[in-house]
Amino acid sequence: MAGAYVAGRATADAATPSAADGARSSSYAFRGERQAGIVTPAQDRLHFAAFDVVTDSRDDLVALLQAWTTAAEQMTAGEPAGNGAVDGDVNLPPDDTGEALDLPASGLTITFGFGPTLFRDADGKDRFGLADRQPASLRELPHFPGDLLDPERSGGDLCIQACADDPQVAVHAVRNLARIGFGTVSVRWSQLGFGRTSTTSTSQSTPRNLFGFKDGTANVKAEEADALDQHVWVGSGDDDAAAWLVGGSYLVARRINMNIEIWDRQPLGDQESFIGRTKGTGAPLSGGEEMTEPDFSMPGSNDQPVIPVDSHVRVVHPDTNGGVRMLRRGYNFVDGSNALGGLDAGLFFIAYVRDPDTHFIPVQLVMSKTDALAEYLKFTGSALFAVPPGTGPGEHVGQALFA
Amino acid sequence: MAGAYVAGRATADAATPSAADGARSSSYAFRGERQAGIVTPAQDRLHFAAFDVVTDSRDDLVALLQAWTTAAEQMTAGEPAGNGAVDGDVNLPPDDTGEALDLPASGLTITFGFGPTLFRDADGKDRFGLADRQPASLRELPHFPGDLLDPERSGGDLCIQACADDPQVAVHAVRNLARIGFGTVSVRWSQLGFGRTSTTSTSQSTPRNLFGFKDGTANVKAEEADALDQHVWVGSGDDDAAAWLVGGSYLVARRINMNIEIWDRQPLGDQESFIGRTKGTGAPLSGGEEMTEPDFSMPGSNDQPVIPVDSHVRVVHPDTNGGVRMLRRGYNFVDGSNALGGLDAGLFFIAYVRDPDTHFIPVQLVMSKTDALAEYLKFTGSALFAVPPGTGPGEHVGQALFA
Repeated sequence: MAGAYVAGRATADAATPSAADGARSSSYAFRGERQAGIVTPAQDRLHFAAFDVVTDSRDDLVALLQAWTTAAEQMTAGEPAGNGAVDGDVNLPPDDTGEALDLPASGLTITFGFGPTLFRDADGKDRFGLADRQPASLRELPHFPGDLLDPERSGGDLCIQACADDPQVAVHAVRNLARIGFGTVSVRWSQLGFGRTSTTSTSQSTPRNLFGFKDGTANVKAEEADALDQHVWVGSGDDDAAAWLVGGSYLVARRINMNIEIWDRQPLGDQESFIGRTKGTGAPLSGGEEMTEPDFSMPGSNDQPVIPVDSHVRVVHPDTNGGVRMLRRGYNFVDGSNALGGLDAGLFFIAYVRDPDTHFIPVQLVMSKTDALAEYLKFTGSALFAVPPGTGPGEHVGQALFA
Repeated sequence: MAGAYVAGRATADAATPSAADGARSSSYAFRGERQAGIVTPAQDRLHFAAFDVVTDSRDDLVALLQAWTTAAEQMTAGEPAGNGAVDGDVNLPPDDTGEALDLPASGLTITFGFGPTLFRDADGKDRFGLADRQPASLRELPHFPGDLLDPERSGGDLCIQACADDPQVAVHAVRNLARIGFGTVSVRWSQLGFGRTSTTSTSQSTPRNLFGFKDGTANVKAEEADALDQHVWVGSGDDDAAAWLVGGSYLVARRINMNIEIWDRQPLGDQESFIGRTKGTGAPLSGGEEMTEPDFSMPGSNDQPVIPVDSHVRVVHPDTNGGVRMLRRGYNFVDGSNALGGLDAGLFFIAYVRDPDTHFIPVQLVMSKTDALAEYLKFTGSALFAVPPGTGPGEHVGQALFA
């Protein structure tokens, strides 16, 4: 990335300091029919940020989205943010903060979303003349059993999901977008994720969460066009008030603390019963391989099914939930330690769904009431965003919302 | 890592989910003359943890060090922790938590240290019969200007530095060592670092910190055997009470919050003056390339040297500090957001020195008083540990201390 930023200053040989991370040269176009970062093969690392808009000016908000669009297009191409005005001009602040100058694009995607409070504030006030375009399903999520939400880790007017195979590239993207937004937005909360827990393409193998189990085996994948239309992309007849969202999606973010110290002291058999899969291969307890469909009717001991009725795989399975599926894109996190002498660790859950009212809220309600895992989880953050469709040539992010 | 852990359960083909990260198959032997993780080429990712010992039993402490030694040797070889008792025994908690089962060793190193409070508690009590072996230089660091230390991010009886090229592998190591220590230790604080800011081998290129500048250009490197003996390794005559530490080192950990939002609004020329190097190539302002020695006497404008007297490179340079050098091994961090609408970001500074009294405290005092960077830094965590030499065959970590 050194070229455009420090032309005449940088040496030609800007070697990457992350040699061990190998092939990170992939890049994804920012503009397109859909926003990148949803069905894009899930990158290894995440920096997610939610923002409060601190201006009353609709023009300033639109100008920010224009500036963010320009910078996002540059950074996802592996270029620094900015227009070249920093080339040696020592009298101006640099247009790019510099920490990714020597790094390739690293598969960076930047995905933008709009929170319910962008449309109406807590008092119902129409902040930016957008209230009549607020999607009916875009409102604060209800309280779920197990929620112990920290307001400082919840909500937000805008969000940015930056995924990359190098965490420094993801952090650089969020940091520069926050810098560009100075005076218009402020960071409400931000979350790093060090390890992906989802597979969004059949080309990827299944990673493990901090319970040590494979996660996301049955995820909706990029190759399933029909399932994406049915479960992920907002359809043209879904919400007449929100035509601008057609082709987009809803992003559900949930910070889930895992009580890993207690979990680690449970017998292997109990862990597997809670999940409904074996720890080694991830095969369902009814047998087969990881990708084998679970057989919920297979009898086990004591007249109980071999896959317990309160096992996670069963409680959240489409067969138990009217057929609904989500595209999950979560990440493991460790944010230091907790007051109990353990790690502040868990899963930063991200799901993309066509409609949270049908595809998330009912599943979460069932899960938080009946899932055997619930005992080991505490929900400490929550947010919902409408994710507009992709940005066409010459457009800015979410342009149809403001048209 | 699947083999030993889930023999008979795992499929033979345990593919890595981190395909984009490429060649992570390197591994470093745990046992040797020195502990790995000091002169080892700095890996990309860090998980550092400090522990409080919660027992009064010297035997329990020694047993923990024995168990940690076994587990560290296994995990750095790319194997799971444990002795195989979990192979299918569903009635026992697994010996390994599982989240790294499919991942290679990823260059993991695990480095152990002993804090001053392991020898004497705050009241001066000899906790484990080790007080007469406490090194004279192993005591709480003095207060420095700019220190706003959080006690919950400072100190500790024991420390573990886990470095790897995959963060999930580093987290897995710390998490399993904490699990093994349950009842004997509790986590006092823990810190993730996503990007290395140091180069410890001439084979590595120089990375960038969150000021966007190359960092660690003049670091002591593995290839400089004489400099290591002079500045990093404790010598045989250094401290008669602490013969057990000969061949080891001292680890200084400092959590340095950077005010990146203010920094980003400084003109490029000011940023370069604060550092004393150009932002693009990292060359000293006196000219040349990154590795060119700075010329502090070169005149600039207004009768001032071209490298300002308060520039970071000058203030911390060995020429300004009686020739002392440190082996630095720091990492960039972002821990969510701060109360000011920005990112809680900075540098987790780690340095290995032969003696903090001569090689760290004087430099830090000068820096915190006169360095132009000090305005943009806030020190929020601090700790000092004695790092014993390597662990020989059949030994446990730090065995000479307890002999």
